Amino acid sequence: MRLRNKPWADDYIKEHTSNVEQDPYDRKGNWQSIFHKEQPIALEIGTGKGRFIEGMATYNPEFNFIGIERDKNVIVSAINKIKELTNTKLVHVNARDLRDMFSENEIDRIYLNFSDPWPKTRHEKRRLTYYTFLEQYQSVLHNQGKIIMKTDNRKLFEYSLVSFSQFGMKLEDVTLDLHALEDETNVMTEYEEKFSNKGQPIYRCIASFQ
Amino acid sequence: MRLRNKPWADDYIKEHTSNVEQDPYDRKGNWQSIFHKEQPIALEIGTGKGRFIEGMATYNPEFNFIGIERDKNVIVSAINKIKELTNTKLVHVNARDLRDMFSENEIDRIYLNFSDPWPKTRHEKRRLTYYTFLEQYQSVLHNQGKIIMKTDNRKLFEYSLVSFSQFGMKLEDVTLDLHALEDETNVMTEYEEKFSNKGQPIYRCIASFQ
Repeated sequence: MRLRNKPWADDYIKEHTSNVEQDPYDRKGNWQSIFHKEQPIALEIGTGKGRFIEGMATYNPEFNFIGIERDKNVIVSAINKIKELTNTKLVHVNARDLRDMFSENEIDRIYLNFSDPWPKTRHEKRRLTYYTFLEQYQSVLHNQGKIIMKTDNRKLFEYSLVSFSQFGMKLEDVTLDLHALEDETNVMTEYEEKFSNKGQPIYRCIASFQ
Repeated sequence: MRLRNKPWADDYIKEHTSNVEQDPYDRKGNWQSIFHKEQPIALEIGTGKGRFIEGMATYNPEFNFIGIERDKNVIVSAINKIKELTNTKLVHVNARDLRDMFSENEIDRIYLNFSDPWPKTRHEKRRLTYYTFLEQYQSVLHNQGKIIMKTDNRKLFEYSLVSFSQFGMKLEDVTLDLHALEDETNVMTEYEEKFSNKGQPIYRCIASFQ
């Protein structure tokens, strides 16, 4: 999904101060203040070109959405999609530790969509469902909060189910062929549509720390 | 997998006293005594025609195997397969409650192979991974014991992962395409070979109560 380099992207991101939070680490504990309404916050890690967050934020106006994306070449597309949405903000960082950016219980849902599977064992620590990330999610998520993960990568999904479970999390729902469900509330990412159209199953699980 | 009625089956089962335990409820707490060696016990619920238990018992002589099968018309085939195996016994009952047949901690592993998926919601209670069954497994399984489940039924597998998790069990391993693993230690059931040959994925998980 990496696009060709866009030398204008950095300036574009800096110009869109109402769509992209420019000082995300200073917002810790205070994210509600940048939204029009104080309401539960959903965080997407790896927002890509923004199709998912645009759809979710449109259909779920009772949530505020924050999308983190480290790649400047794709976040510019996301900016264009969410420009008019008052319940959506983007963050352009390579997230080190979410606990530097969010207070305890500040987030109500975390979406992990088609994260990099990092298939090599020596890269396990980089997978977004490795236990060090789960520790971060547990900290920033509200007690009732959920992680909603979608992927087409079988091995990442298998790994993540076990990782959630070993961490003591509870699986609330597991779907091994999301599109067989014909769930009309499922908002697809660009990636999801492409791979689903090829007939590949999309896996989803919902997990909580309760 | 139900075969045509075999009127001679009842007699055949009664004649094979060294292969089929005739009084399983009287064996509670005392199963080791019917085997040649005292060693961990693996229990298969729904042994069918016995291909799995025959293979497992042959390749794992360090375990004693007990196979439960309620259908007389298929258990007769299993009897013929395990006749020569000193570490394998069959039980011909429609298992009511495993706690009537086994003491606490008497079992070391439970295999659930291609169990009836009971797809209708009103039949949920009959699924072998419904919580009332998990209560039984927890009681008869040793603390370190594991449940190893295989199925080709996607919805039963999704259901079971959530059921295990909600019960507080830990997932040790999840495989969404068992035969892609090329695991040479995987002993196939008759059913498994048939469906795997059709290209359907076989799901497996290993879960524990720890």
